[in-house]
Amino acid sequence: MRSQVVIVGGGFGGLYAAKALRKAPVRVTIVDRTNHHVFQPLLYQVATAGLSAIDIGEPIRRILRRQSNATVLLGNVTRIDTDGRLVHLASGDILDYDYLIVATGAAHSYFGHDDWAEYAPGLNTIEDALEIRRRILVAFERAELADDPTERVHFLTFVVLGAGPTGAELAGAIAELARHALVADFRRISPRDAHIVLIEAGDRVLSTYPESLSTKAQRQLERLGVEVRTGEIVTGIDGRGVDTSAGRLEAATVLWAAGVAASPLGASLGAPLDSAGRVLVEPDLTLPGHPEASVVGDLAAATHHGAPVPGVAPAAMQMGRHASRTIERAISGQPPEPFHYIDKGSMATLGRSSAIASIKGLRLSGFPAWAAWLLVHIVFLIGFRNRFVVLFEWTKAYLTYGRSARLILFQESEE
Amino acid sequence: MRSQVVIVGGGFGGLYAAKALRKAPVRVTIVDRTNHHVFQPLLYQVATAGLSAIDIGEPIRRILRRQSNATVLLGNVTRIDTDGRLVHLASGDILDYDYLIVATGAAHSYFGHDDWAEYAPGLNTIEDALEIRRRILVAFERAELADDPTERVHFLTFVVLGAGPTGAELAGAIAELARHALVADFRRISPRDAHIVLIEAGDRVLSTYPESLSTKAQRQLERLGVEVRTGEIVTGIDGRGVDTSAGRLEAATVLWAAGVAASPLGASLGAPLDSAGRVLVEPDLTLPGHPEASVVGDLAAATHHGAPVPGVAPAAMQMGRHASRTIERAISGQPPEPFHYIDKGSMATLGRSSAIASIKGLRLSGFPAWAAWLLVHIVFLIGFRNRFVVLFEWTKAYLTYGRSARLILFQESEE
Repeated sequence: MRSQVVIVGGGFGGLYAAKALRKAPVRVTIVDRTNHHVFQPLLYQVATAGLSAIDIGEPIRRILRRQSNATVLLGNVTRIDTDGRLVHLASGDILDYDYLIVATGAAHSYFGHDDWAEYAPGLNTIEDALEIRRRILVAFERAELADDPTERVHFLTFVVLGAGPTGAELAGAIAELARHALVADFRRISPRDAHIVLIEAGDRVLSTYPESLSTKAQRQLERLGVEVRTGEIVTGIDGRGVDTSAGRLEAATVLWAAGVAASPLGASLGAPLDSAGRVLVEPDLTLPGHPEASVVGDLAAATHHGAPVPGVAPAAMQMGRHASRTIERAISGQPPEPFHYIDKGSMATLGRSSAIASIKGLRLSGFPAWAAWLLVHIVFLIGFRNRFVVLFEWTKAYLTYGRSARLILFQESEE
Repeated sequence: MRSQVVIVGGGFGGLYAAKALRKAPVRVTIVDRTNHHVFQPLLYQVATAGLSAIDIGEPIRRILRRQSNATVLLGNVTRIDTDGRLVHLASGDILDYDYLIVATGAAHSYFGHDDWAEYAPGLNTIEDALEIRRRILVAFERAELADDPTERVHFLTFVVLGAGPTGAELAGAIAELARHALVADFRRISPRDAHIVLIEAGDRVLSTYPESLSTKAQRQLERLGVEVRTGEIVTGIDGRGVDTSAGRLEAATVLWAAGVAASPLGASLGAPLDSAGRVLVEPDLTLPGHPEASVVGDLAAATHHGAPVPGVAPAAMQMGRHASRTIERAISGQPPEPFHYIDKGSMATLGRSSAIASIKGLRLSGFPAWAAWLLVHIVFLIGFRNRFVVLFEWTKAYLTYGRSARLILFQESEE
């Protein structure tokens, strides 16, 4: 009888764990709330009309169609019983397991200000990206319709809160959208008049990068037309704008990229959590007292040589593969090994020919960083169709300055 | 001072009217509730995971970006005052005009059974297509999750009501999805077990075509695995299935393709309407008593040589161009001319290498009709990107039997 492995979550951690088990003598069941794996690093491009949802999402069951030991289920896991080795789904179904991998990741968090969510959506799922895109494009439409100049300024002001990778990339992409892609399409307004403000509570943008790259990134953003404000704390958000430590800022569109919290499922595992809700795992990524259960990806508070493993896609993939190896070792009677994180560097793109990259001591900015970013993201995209279409869209965008994915869907307002 | 032309609606009628006015000495304002023109004939392919929304939708302001005399507004027209020559928007804005073209089309209608809408969505907008796609794909997911064999049969039963072009195309495409694209992706169910039932109240499918083609279409559908039932009237729809004159049919997915009614805006024009709510226009397509206002496309009850002009895309385009010509003639002091409809034939596709076409007495079916259908639809698609990507998707689907657009979005159920 083959061992049952249940994997909860089909992001980078869960998917790469499942794939690593393709030749293992186990039966794998992977459960996700959505039917698709999302290539998260390009989500901001869906939010800013550069790519379509379909370009960065792929049904999990399609990715694993040739892996005959894997079953994919669409289901919402509500609770995990680590003592009974049971995974409970909202549908009432219960899955039992011999080995478990939990990879439900993290989502944006408003630090207790959940009422801000309505006014300042964050970017975590494809649906979030479509909602942000809708708001950005509708703001330009409302500005075109408005007769009152004050209203036009209001609709053409875009505030991004938080200057980590997501915030910086969003702000840069909105600036490019306004200054290039939309310019010829309006008659009453000039999209170039858009005012994009990036607000960061810390003292610099992209603070996980070396300081010299932060400085270069800020300069690149400013060249794109983004107003960068650091050391400014948000104190309130409402339907007309934001209040910060520096005063009031009126804006029709406010986007949240300022905080992340781990998936609430972590709390049901019975293990200690860190302040962001992440599970404090053993050095081999297993749950304390449960060598049959691993936690990987953004849900895991893992350390390597005393430093926290960052919440990035390559780390999640490595953790997923490690958890699979732990299961294969256990089946063949070998003890687990500690997880070693291999830092392959990090990169963020800010706009056309504009990016920063930090790769093993090598620091790149501008065009070389941007070219490296393009290459890496095309290579790691899943699926031939996606690589082909994304390459086509990027080439077209580079040549024409246009953006293809400009449909406004689910526009529910009656105005 | 240039004359003001307001066009309400950016479908085939409104868009082709706007484009025909590009060299006219007028200022054109085109208003639509959505920001995009939809290539309606391919909507069923979005609903059945063959194409993405972006492939068949294009922002109206992008299509008209180089037409400097055209302004595009995103707005919801609530009322038209033909005496005051004013168009009222829900936002409170009011547009005045010298010439008006109303092209707000038709939508599906439940003939007074509006409570059926929740259980049996119709196909009119891109949002409708995404909702239908979501329901179809979720049904397969639920079947995979279900333990009870009766539940599996329930989830794998798909009922399409109405065997006009939309219903026949939907049923054929669902059958192909189940029998080819999804086959390798499930472990607990066989998508081939899906039961697709096409129910028509009339005595044959595709009843606007010659009877010999209807017979061939029915045979092609049956070969694809669709159960075709004619002469069967729907008496009830609920969350578990449909009641018809032949009895009860349990099905998780029920789709509505059985009726169409004109846009309610027609009623505010003060002109007589036909039983489907369409505006009874003059032979030149103008409103009775209002030579400055034309109604075009599916909202117009136009006749040609005594026969009604059909509600198809080529007719809407021809009417749009005619209304523009009427305006140009009026500006140069010439009287209006009656509208002449040129029937270029019609075609419907049912599946791979499977279609019927009726073109000026020529009757095609099977592969030749299918090839003609492909060619015509690629040629008439708007935009290079769309043609390129759709051609890529179709080629890929032909070679691999796959479907690319299988993301389930906005899945709100908690199960």
